[in-house]
Parts: sequence; C-alpha cells; structure tokens
Amino acid sequence: MSEQDAPQYPVDPVNRVKRRHDRGFYDHATVHRLLDAAALAHVAYVIDGRPFCTPTLFWREGTRLYWHGSSASRMLRNLSTGEPACLTVTHLDSLVLARSGMNHSADYRSVMAFGTAVLVDDRDEKVRALTMMVDRFFPDRTATLRPITAQEIKATAVVVMEIERASAKIRAKGVADDEEDYALPIHAERLPVQTVLGAPEPCPRLLADVARPGTLAPYRAGRPLEEAVSEAYAVAYAGTEFA
Amino acid sequence: MSEQDAPQYPVDPVNRVKRRHDRGFYDHATVHRLLDAAALAHVAYVIDGRPFCTPTLFWREGTRLYWHGSSASRMLRNLSTGEPACLTVTHLDSLVLARSGMNHSADYRSVMAFGTAVLVDDRDEKVRALTMMVDRFFPDRTATLRPITAQEIKATAVVVMEIERASAKIRAKGVADDEEDYALPIHAERLPVQTVLGAPEPCPRLLADVARPGTLAPYRAGRPLEEAVSEAYAVAYAGTEFA
Repeated sequence: MSEQDAPQYPVDPVNRVKRRHDRGFYDHATVHRLLDAAALAHVAYVIDGRPFCTPTLFWREGTRLYWHGSSASRMLRNLSTGEPACLTVTHLDSLVLARSGMNHSADYRSVMAFGTAVLVDDRDEKVRALTMMVDRFFPDRTATLRPITAQEIKATAVVVMEIERASAKIRAKGVADDEEDYALPIHAERLPVQTVLGAPEPCPRLLADVARPGTLAPYRAGRPLEEAVSEAYAVAYAGTEFA
Repeated sequence: MSEQDAPQYPVDPVNRVKRRHDRGFYDHATVHRLLDAAALAHVAYVIDGRPFCTPTLFWREGTRLYWHGSSASRMLRNLSTGEPACLTVTHLDSLVLARSGMNHSADYRSVMAFGTAVLVDDRDEKVRALTMMVDRFFPDRTATLRPITAQEIKATAVVVMEIERASAKIRAKGVADDEEDYALPIHAERLPVQTVLGAPEPCPRLLADVARPGTLAPYRAGRPLEEAVSEAYAVAYAGTEFA
C-alpha cells in the first residue's frame, strides 16, 4: 500500500496539529500503534460547560476506542445520550536539557482522538467488551476466571467511541539548540524516561498449586510496559480484522 | 498541625470523588505531593463546546499551576480571557490481575485540579515563570544558560491557573477479590509499573571541556522519575513560601 493509499483520519481544524505541524501524523498505522502501546489514557469531556480530565484504562478495536467504569461514575452518567469526548495517550520518552531555556523540551509520542462517546447498551456487546477489557491486555484470560455475574454486568458501564478525527504528535530529536548556541560552553543532554514493569507480585492468598499462566509471559520484570501491551494486543486480536 | 487544621481544597459536586469515595483526598499536602512528583500533566479545556485533552509539562507554586507553550498554540489562544480548565496528573503504579474480570484494576495516584486558566501578561512575571519552568526541574540551571531573548519572551505564552478545587484519588491495594473468590484455583497478581530514568545522553555536539553540572545529580539512571522530580522541587523552592 503506498503512502497515499494508507488509511488516514480526516484532518480539519479540530485535529490539525498547528504548533510544530511537522510533528503531526494522521495515518491509522501511526495513530493505532501509539494507542495500542498504552493501557492508560486521559479522557476530556464537558459537563455544564466545564472541562473534566479523567484517567482511565482503555483499549482499541479498529477505529473504535473502549473504556469502562462503574455505572455510577460522573463521566459515564453523562454519556448515556452520547457526548463529545477527546481521549489522549502520551508516551513520555525524555526530558531535554538545552543550551537555552526556550529549547528545553521533552521527547514524546502522543495521540488525541476525538469522537462521540456513547454507552454500550446491548447486553451481548457489553459482555463481549468486558471480556476484551481483560483479554486485550491478558490474552485468553477471561476463560480462566470466575464467570461474570448478571449483577456485575448491570453495575458496569462500557463506553465506546468511534474515532471521528485523530492526530498523533511525535517529538524524537533530543537536544535541538539554535545553531549559534552549540558553540557555547553549556552542558546539554537528553534524559531518557521509560515506563517499565517490575517483578510480578503473586497475590499473597494464592492457592499453593496455582501456577502463573504462560499467557502472561509478555509481562516480565524490566520490560517496557508499552512493549508488553503492544505484544498482548497483537496476540489478543490475531486472526481478526483488528490484528 | 492536626488533621482538621490541615489546609484543604473545598469540596463540592465538581471535585468530590464519587466513585470509590474512600479513595478521595482533598488536603493540600496529598494533592501537592502528587503534583510535585510529576513533570507531565493532561489539561482539559473547552472550545466551541468541544473538549480537548492536551499533554503538557507543568509545575506548581503554592496553590497555582503553571504551564506554557508557543503563543500560537490552540489552547493558549483561547485562554487570553481566562477559560475553565482541568489539569490532571496520573501516576500509574500497577496493573492488577484478579480472580474475576470485574476485579481487574490498576493501582494509581491521580490528581484532578480545577480552575480558570489565564495567560500571564506581566513581562517580569512571565520571565520569572519561564525561569522556574526550567529551574523547578533543574535547580539554578537558568543562570548557566544563554540568556532568554526579547523575541523568545514574546513568542512564548505562559498559563497560570489558581487551583479552585482539587481532589486526589489513590488506589494502592493490589489484588482485592470478592472474599469467596480467594478459594478459587485462579492465578492473581499485581504487576508493578514504574516510570524510570535512563542513562543521561550528553548532546553529541557538547564542547570537550563541559562537565555535567552537579545540580543534575538527582537525575541518574534507574531512578524513578517521580523521585528526581520531587527532589528537584524541594531544592528549587527551598527557603521560599512554596517549600
């Protein structure tokens, strides 16, 4: 597929990257890769004209984003009829110390996805989503768990948002000073930042003969979280249209 | 100071933690500690009734939050007259695998801070803020840099927001299953997650006789970013009312 044929999100004043537009990407491949490498997103929504920014676990299927919460949560109560939302994911890759204050910066990879968030009403689709909420991160895990109860299905709300617009923004250049400043006797450096997994801590009340499932192998100590989360996504959706 | 006398942010329907209210905190000490341990925040704001969620570096002074960006950026252009905003910081501490799908969770520490974001107009206050934007993370660094130019001051916008309401939300309990589920032969674990610093990467164009300043000592490989950022805050504001 040539670059021109590659699927892209439409670009308009809402999602066009204005500042440092050279850092902007709109193709599905870039946007989805950054989303699938994350477990945590921040969702902005509006209640009575006032903005709220809420952290949440989330996941993607095709051009849809899913997240969930208790049926009682404020954000979800306001989404029953559909509300505009913006879900943002940011991977912080470094802090950058330059030779001038202005060129201090950070390397990062972020996605802003815009759409209308609605509650999933259909019971079967809700159960399917609640399954993928676990299995997207820990493939095939739901089949090994105590089954979900009717009460739990009722108490949990699932939100789905079709991505109408999206943009990715990437800065990955480390120190970038004004040309004349490189001659100055000033220290400058890139401080790498990475979110990594620690050693798994088995539940202290685990029964004696229960082993760690092999499907959790991607989640091992010292590994970047985004690698494990990306690998789990690929396994969870292997053979589907979302692979 | 007794717990009752400790400064608190006012609690009302905007910032009251509704879901899992046992996880909510409103005291300055808890809110500020979580803010000062972060470099990255997500800011929600509203343009034409539509929510936007933007990642940004930020810092705190007392009950004020600061962030910055090019004068051309979309968010900042809309803040010239003051706009309601919500700045959120999230420290992800773990992914939690439970014995039921519903009890899968994450440990985290987050703050939502609400207020009215306004542009800093006063030139001296702007220069002071641009100094602290660097020195808050890298104490005393600005004095060692190429001085800021009039053009740079003009091209950069600084936003300040007095925190009118704030809440912290903390989950730190790892696996928490329904009591009857602990008897099931199902694996459950807490997967620790931490954002850490890598080895500093000196600028490849560094002059030969330029050494790394001792003031950067808090930023060393393997250290949690939040430790280094918290320590830098304490050094940067030592002896001030914000210490």
